[in-house]
Amino acid sequence: MEIQPYLHKTQYYETDQMKIIHHSNYIRWFEEARTDFMEQIGLSYAEMERMGIIVPVLSVSAEYKSMVRYGDSVLISIQVQAYNGVKLDLAYEVYHAETKELHTTGTSRHCFLNEAGRPISLKRSAPELHEMFAAFV
Amino acid sequence: MEIQPYLHKTQYYETDQMKIIHHSNYIRWFEEARTDFMEQIGLSYAEMERMGIIVPVLSVSAEYKSMVRYGDSVLISIQVQAYNGVKLDLAYEVYHAETKELHTTGTSRHCFLNEAGRPISLKRSAPELHEMFAAFV
Amino acid sequence: MEIQPYLHKTQYYETDQMKIIHHSNYIRWFEEARTDFMEQIGLSYAEMERMGIIVPVLSVSAEYKSMVRYGDSVLISIQVQAYNGVKLDLAYEVYHAETKELHTTGTSRHCFLNEAGRPISLKRSAPELHEMFAAFV
Amino acid sequence: MEIQPYLHKTQYYETDQMKIIHHSNYIRWFEEARTDFMEQIGLSYAEMERMGIIVPVLSVSAEYKSMVRYGDSVLISIQVQAYNGVKLDLAYEVYHAETKELHTTGTSRHCFLNEAGRPISLKRSAPELHEMFAAFV
Repeated sequence: MEIQPYLHKTQYYETDQMKIIHHSNYIRWFEEARTDFMEQIGLSYAEMERMGIIVPVLSVSAEYKSMVRYGDSVLISIQVQAYNGVKLDLAYEVYHAETKELHTTGTSRHCFLNEAGRPISLKRSAPELHEMFAAFV
Repeated sequence: MEIQPYLHKTQYYETDQMKIIHHSNYIRWFEEARTDFMEQIGLSYAEMERMGIIVPVLSVSAEYKSMVRYGDSVLISIQVQAYNGVKLDLAYEVYHAETKELHTTGTSRHCFLNEAGRPISLKRSAPELHEMFAAFV
Repeated sequence: MEIQPYLHKTQYYETDQMKIIHHSNYIRWFEEARTDFMEQIGLSYAEMERMGIIVPVLSVSAEYKSMVRYGDSVLISIQVQAYNGVKLDLAYEVYHAETKELHTTGTSRHCFLNEAGRPISLKRSAPELHEMFAAFV
Repeated sequence: MEIQPYLHKTQYYETDQMKIIHHSNYIRWFEEARTDFMEQIGLSYAEMERMGIIVPVLSVSAEYKSMVRYGDSVLISIQVQAYNGVKLDLAYEVYHAETKELHTTGTSRHCFLNEAGRPISLKRSAPELHEMFAAFV
């Protein structure tokens, strides 16, 4: 199964007075790409929450190589870098939708919690979800 | 009891590429001022939610008279325009902290819901909160 | 020419702890719909800025009829309510992409400025843009 | 000279439906703390921009150790980890204003650009600013 990169069109409210996209928005774009990725592999994040599984962010990073400007559209690709049923490491690449210039790279780390806020092993608690993630390492 | 206007310092992430504060942020500043107002009259919004009372926004408006720029600080004053135990109408004025220039005016309307999402009369459900709001009409 | 409503997919970062979309985001969605509308009629807002024309927001309002939740997608339609070459009044309807339930209505008013920040008549300064807006009243 | 940590009061619009502060906001808080730090050492970021010096973000990271909730206030302290006149590395600690629990750590890396977008050495271009940063390594 091939995952398609996620397309984000920059918005005016994402700019700052440097006339570029404010750096904090990329962290939000990573989230957009992440939920899109999950839908592509067959489980929406909204559904996971209804199943009582919460996926908080343990850490996040972004490296800005070149600026994105208003009017640009970007593609965001995701790689599952590590997954062991308990933790999930993702890597992101943000590149220009037309020129394919690489603008930003990033990472995020996640765990899985039940509704009581306790860490769970997806492998035991939701083996079918576990298989989906495991297939992408 | 005299309510003090709420002080907000503009942030870089609130600017846009017009080199002004993006207009959507004022709606958030109204919320900041509203929670500050509630704390001043003696009930924090966080506490109200713990009591099971939710205060959604039914409508909001803003009129932008002159632009606010990064580096400015603004004061936001609130008037209770109408309150009948079921609905609450607030009016806002955003003015420059130093020059006192009036930048923006606005309004918001609210109702009160219980945790099941049902409209409640604050007058009956939480008479002590009701008295607090009623005192400011 | 028929304008297509703008599709917005709700994002997790747009939610608040009431488990709904935070009301300030609709003001941003109006902007998304507005720039999409302008592209559909043939002029991107990014291009207008390159031509030296800035379109600030003079006022904005939103009326929230029913809550939008994470996982929902909404369609936003725009009507040009008034346009005289100097001011532009827009009206918005936000409805559920599937059920077509009307969630929110809103308005925004705009003027046109040159790069020096002076109000201009689009009719005189950019007659071809003027014709585009005028066609939609 | 002793730098005071920056105080941020959490806002409702910063929460998400996990009933915590959305992780992207910490990146914005780092910026708030950074501009406050610069004002404490004697140069506002608004003034630097007026001098024609822009300070973009080259990279950013955050590690979330425990959740911050609405109603909490946090203190953010900054350490200058490295500075050589061309690049600036900052480290952040976000802790609870009352309990002093450490919630989040983070970093950001910056360079200095002139108005044409060219990297500059602060040491040569603005030696008085250079001295201010150098004093905090």
